[in-house]
Amino acid sequence: MSELRKDAITGRWVIISTDRRRRPTDFRLERQTLIGAEYCPFCAGREDMTPPEVLAYRHDGGAPNTAGWELRVVPNKFPALQVEGNLDREGEGLFDRMNGLGAHEVIIETPDHGKTLQTMSEPEIERVLWAYRERVLDLKRDIRFRYILIFKNHGAAAGATLEHSHSQLIALPIVPGLVREEIEGARQHFASKERCVFCDIVRQEVAAGRRVIHENAEIVALAPYAPRFPFETWLLPRSHGARYEEASRQQYESLARMIKSLLTRMNRVLESPSYNMIIHSLPFSEQATDFYHWHVELTPILTRTAGFEWGTGFYINPTSPEEAAQVLRAARV
Amino acid sequence: MSELRKDAITGRWVIISTDRRRRPTDFRLERQTLIGAEYCPFCAGREDMTPPEVLAYRHDGGAPNTAGWELRVVPNKFPALQVEGNLDREGEGLFDRMNGLGAHEVIIETPDHGKTLQTMSEPEIERVLWAYRERVLDLKRDIRFRYILIFKNHGAAAGATLEHSHSQLIALPIVPGLVREEIEGARQHFASKERCVFCDIVRQEVAAGRRVIHENAEIVALAPYAPRFPFETWLLPRSHGARYEEASRQQYESLARMIKSLLTRMNRVLESPSYNMIIHSLPFSEQATDFYHWHVELTPILTRTAGFEWGTGFYINPTSPEEAAQVLRAARV
Repeated sequence: MSELRKDAITGRWVIISTDRRRRPTDFRLERQTLIGAEYCPFCAGREDMTPPEVLAYRHDGGAPNTAGWELRVVPNKFPALQVEGNLDREGEGLFDRMNGLGAHEVIIETPDHGKTLQTMSEPEIERVLWAYRERVLDLKRDIRFRYILIFKNHGAAAGATLEHSHSQLIALPIVPGLVREEIEGARQHFASKERCVFCDIVRQEVAAGRRVIHENAEIVALAPYAPRFPFETWLLPRSHGARYEEASRQQYESLARMIKSLLTRMNRVLESPSYNMIIHSLPFSEQATDFYHWHVELTPILTRTAGFEWGTGFYINPTSPEEAAQVLRAARV
Repeated sequence: MSELRKDAITGRWVIISTDRRRRPTDFRLERQTLIGAEYCPFCAGREDMTPPEVLAYRHDGGAPNTAGWELRVVPNKFPALQVEGNLDREGEGLFDRMNGLGAHEVIIETPDHGKTLQTMSEPEIERVLWAYRERVLDLKRDIRFRYILIFKNHGAAAGATLEHSHSQLIALPIVPGLVREEIEGARQHFASKERCVFCDIVRQEVAAGRRVIHENAEIVALAPYAPRFPFETWLLPRSHGARYEEASRQQYESLARMIKSLLTRMNRVLESPSYNMIIHSLPFSEQATDFYHWHVELTPILTRTAGFEWGTGFYINPTSPEEAAQVLRAARV
């Protein structure tokens, strides 16, 4: 079973994922080439290569775990955390640990190995967003979970190991550090101003325009003022809402169009980069919803994180967000 | 000039490094191959390819910026931060910025292109450690600086761009987030126990033995209880001391031997991995020195950081520290 362990100095938790355990002889820098179509477990007709599905969209019906689906969600075959068991929090001298309880699922976005999130149609992308929502609504009923992160690794440099377009979801028994930092910062802003800091950022940035990449009915895409990475992009709903799973139909529709537009721009300008996409949403346990604002962060992988960043948590970014916004804004779509 | 910018939500600072500015057409994933001997600016006889030296060790004398040195420290030609100017802190609506004031230096560890920190002799490694100390003692007299990070990127996967063995140093006008987290955690431990948390860890780990990799007179090498990365290793002085630059001659001597031993073990077991090495030391402004303990963190780069980690600050580590310690302990040196 996996284990959650807490660093005695910083309080940072890590997952020691023994199911993914590798021996030293297995180590090399992760392979640069992805698992392609030949051995792909996510293609239609290979449903027996994954654990049984927990959700599937089948327009024309059909039995579970057979072909005929448009989208399919399955438990990760090599999960970082396991659904069964109890936390069993315990100490070991100075140290603290608990069992690696959680959920780790894969959203197979399309049966077609040749499609990417960027080449899918807008309704196809929207279907992926609805599947995210449906899985969160299901998993949040499990009171052992405190946070769910939806994320996507596209391309080897972004940490993907399979080529077939997919996203992932991890449900955690604790609210992770970076999310807590965002929550606390937003709470402080609200305490002093009685306004949501994300709403304030959207207003200020739309008025100024310099860091706006693209806007549509419900979503604004920005280069954030202090980005960690070149071409880091935030997709923010215009209207306030704390939780992704409580967004409106119009917001999902706008978000799907925005994701397609952004990925198309990045592919054109940055030569189809690897990228990470993550969704930040308010933890379930929070009662007040007026101070936090769900959003999507989309980051192409163009640089390597090195000793300075690992040692300080301080990022050196060689591209200003004003320049990144200008370049992405000008890209032909 | 570079700029320091603060994220309005999390309070995280980033460096927007316009001197290293690249246009979008310059972007691709960073090159996999390093600048080799043919174009190397760090080799003896090429002193005019770097800015003028700020420190050099010349056993047999000789003029500055000419060959004949054993170790040489120069300003980084493409610095992330600049030494000239004032901070000029200012607001921009919701946002905060200051000028990118600081120092960014390169420690060229050897004139010999073919040597690495691992293949150098122990006295040669010790010389590098003395050079770190000497530069910190000089730079901390500049009251604009609040923290100095010494770090080393070895190999392309660790973020190096040059093959020739070198370390770097960045002096910052603020204490970075990760260092603040360590300081605050150590301060809390001291407040409740009146003991240094690092001293407690050394005692507990040496007694238990399971995560100890190697010990010598002054230094203990451990796999930490909650490592972010596989084979992450901490080198801790046995006796308490808050600041690297105040360490004893015996400690530098032991640390040099320990670095050589650890790198030799890693090269043998992990097939000469890329790695990052960083030194954490107490910020200059702190008066009390009883609660913090300087140390070295040495991390081979074996996995890729992906969306989950970027979105949560929570790391998934596929190798337990007990296994990593056992493997490194058993390696022939």
